[in-house]
Amino acid sequence: MKHQDEFALSCPVSFEEYPAILLGHGGGGKLMNHLIEKMFLPLFGTPLLDTRHDGTTVDLSHSKIAMTTDSYVVQPLFFPGGDIGSLAIYGTVNDLAMCGANPLYLSAGFILEEGLSMETLWRVVQSMQKAADRAGVRIITGDTKVVERGKGDGIFINTTGIGVVEHSQKIGPASVRPGDILLINGDIASHGIAIMGCREGLSFESALESDSAPLAGLTRELLSSGIHIHCMRDLTRGGLASALNEIAQSAGIKIRIDEALISVREEVRGACEILGLDPLHIANEGRFVAFIPREEAAHALSIMRSHPMGEGSGIIGEVEKGTPDGISETFPVIMRNKMGSDRIVDMLSGEQLPRIC
Amino acid sequence: MKHQDEFALSCPVSFEEYPAILLGHGGGGKLMNHLIEKMFLPLFGTPLLDTRHDGTTVDLSHSKIAMTTDSYVVQPLFFPGGDIGSLAIYGTVNDLAMCGANPLYLSAGFILEEGLSMETLWRVVQSMQKAADRAGVRIITGDTKVVERGKGDGIFINTTGIGVVEHSQKIGPASVRPGDILLINGDIASHGIAIMGCREGLSFESALESDSAPLAGLTRELLSSGIHIHCMRDLTRGGLASALNEIAQSAGIKIRIDEALISVREEVRGACEILGLDPLHIANEGRFVAFIPREEAAHALSIMRSHPMGEGSGIIGEVEKGTPDGISETFPVIMRNKMGSDRIVDMLSGEQLPRIC
Repeated sequence: MKHQDEFALSCPVSFEEYPAILLGHGGGGKLMNHLIEKMFLPLFGTPLLDTRHDGTTVDLSHSKIAMTTDSYVVQPLFFPGGDIGSLAIYGTVNDLAMCGANPLYLSAGFILEEGLSMETLWRVVQSMQKAADRAGVRIITGDTKVVERGKGDGIFINTTGIGVVEHSQKIGPASVRPGDILLINGDIASHGIAIMGCREGLSFESALESDSAPLAGLTRELLSSGIHIHCMRDLTRGGLASALNEIAQSAGIKIRIDEALISVREEVRGACEILGLDPLHIANEGRFVAFIPREEAAHALSIMRSHPMGEGSGIIGEVEKGTPDGISETFPVIMRNKMGSDRIVDMLSGEQLPRIC
Repeated sequence: MKHQDEFALSCPVSFEEYPAILLGHGGGGKLMNHLIEKMFLPLFGTPLLDTRHDGTTVDLSHSKIAMTTDSYVVQPLFFPGGDIGSLAIYGTVNDLAMCGANPLYLSAGFILEEGLSMETLWRVVQSMQKAADRAGVRIITGDTKVVERGKGDGIFINTTGIGVVEHSQKIGPASVRPGDILLINGDIASHGIAIMGCREGLSFESALESDSAPLAGLTRELLSSGIHIHCMRDLTRGGLASALNEIAQSAGIKIRIDEALISVREEVRGACEILGLDPLHIANEGRFVAFIPREEAAHALSIMRSHPMGEGSGIIGEVEKGTPDGISETFPVIMRNKMGSDRIVDMLSGEQLPRIC
């Protein structure tokens, strides 16, 4: 079924009666109840959400859980390869995956701007439900607020996720060790360039889409195969460069990567050159790095490559021996470029592209 | 220590260097890290938050948990008796309390408007931490986004909370029974009138403050005393009237309340009369109703009255016998007024006062 056909499923809130969001849709009264009962419950509805209580109670299989939160303010709301709805699901699912958790339940908090078209909201919430199905998570509790026209920007979404941790590994910067191999699950910078292309009206020779995708299936594969994952991080705002700098600084280690091993699509590279941007600083929404013990790296790579979310996986570098001192304390990430010389990979400073996620 | 003294604790982010929030504070790079490391971590910092990972892993004592989410968009940010920060903590804690859960952990998602004064942010996050301490919860994961000037409104905060359910009661509309007694923990409508007074520049003879407060301590008392709570609901947007209508409709029951038993402060009643508002529709942030089996109502009331959050508790009505039919199907809540005649208590329709929470 194509997207257009799916959208043709008529929205249970009449667009004629309510073409746009009114302040009352966030007021706690009849209008809000209409929106919840007609739109949110039938779409997200599970026996859990249906209790219509202030929150939802669930019985987890494990008492060790991970929790993460993200607000999504991306502009434009719809972009090649995704939209704010699917991004809000995948982004939060991915943060749980990076904790080594199995994502189960999400909350959804909407801040809507008065005057938002009801059709836009309907498209976004449909996309959320589709993404939740794909990622295997359920939206179990929610909230809707409406702010006056000019006090918001269409839709902001917060999703907060919980997942269960079903293993005893300690995944995080503190577990990273010298000699660890850095794996990545594909080419970088497509999400940021897809958004930027949309905003600047750039056209690409071939269809350039965001990499936005759920990563928990792949990380589950790695964990259930017995791979020891010292640390994982998804590459969102600030790109690969910021993720590696954050981990290196938290862990007190030095990282070396090799430019020749980092895959960037031709049209992404071209756009970066035109715009004067470094692909290492550009946001991704379906890419992560994993720090794996050297002796398990080949096994991990083969698992990643046989998963749909990791077909383009590769090794991009390693954790160097020794602790940072002198210049490497401030700049712990070094990249060998294609000419064979080394350069510092610094964290993005300031803002390159606001509202990328 | 007075509030002013507390605030005199100088903010670790220099107001001279960063008088206001820049887009870069949400960019995922150095500026955002500066904000997180200097402001959020020292203030909210627990060993959990300090791992600086994408999410946080916790080991709960129980696997049965409750989850709830709310976004806070209240205007003004500071009002008599509270501010957006304390409201964001208490509101979410109260939703968990209403599920019969013991609130433990919160996430905090900030959507900041470019140009927000750093001092305002500092005041808000300090208030959040103070409120979290008072409510006995910890902020364990967070997110910061910045939107361009004119695309937001100072600060929006999402808090999502999880708590553990340590009893086997089923608390919710489905458990409500004919004959149940309705208890409330105090006078109504102070929060809404305090906000409205702020916005309209009304002055009251005596200091009128929001009722915003954490309710989990009181609900824990009831549960640990063995009281059977059929349903609880905190009275937020839409007020007492909307809460009772929602529960009655979900449960398929009829509710009768008595106006003479519902306490409204003199200055709140006066403001309602001047503004043509019904106190039953006005928002509260520290009030809840509980549906208690008739034979336990007196015991429950004595427990509530001896708790600091329930000194003004009282009985306000009961669940009538029989299921709704005819007019009572649409309007299941009836109030006997002070003249002794009955009137329908309808749900608030539309929006009375936007951005009350």
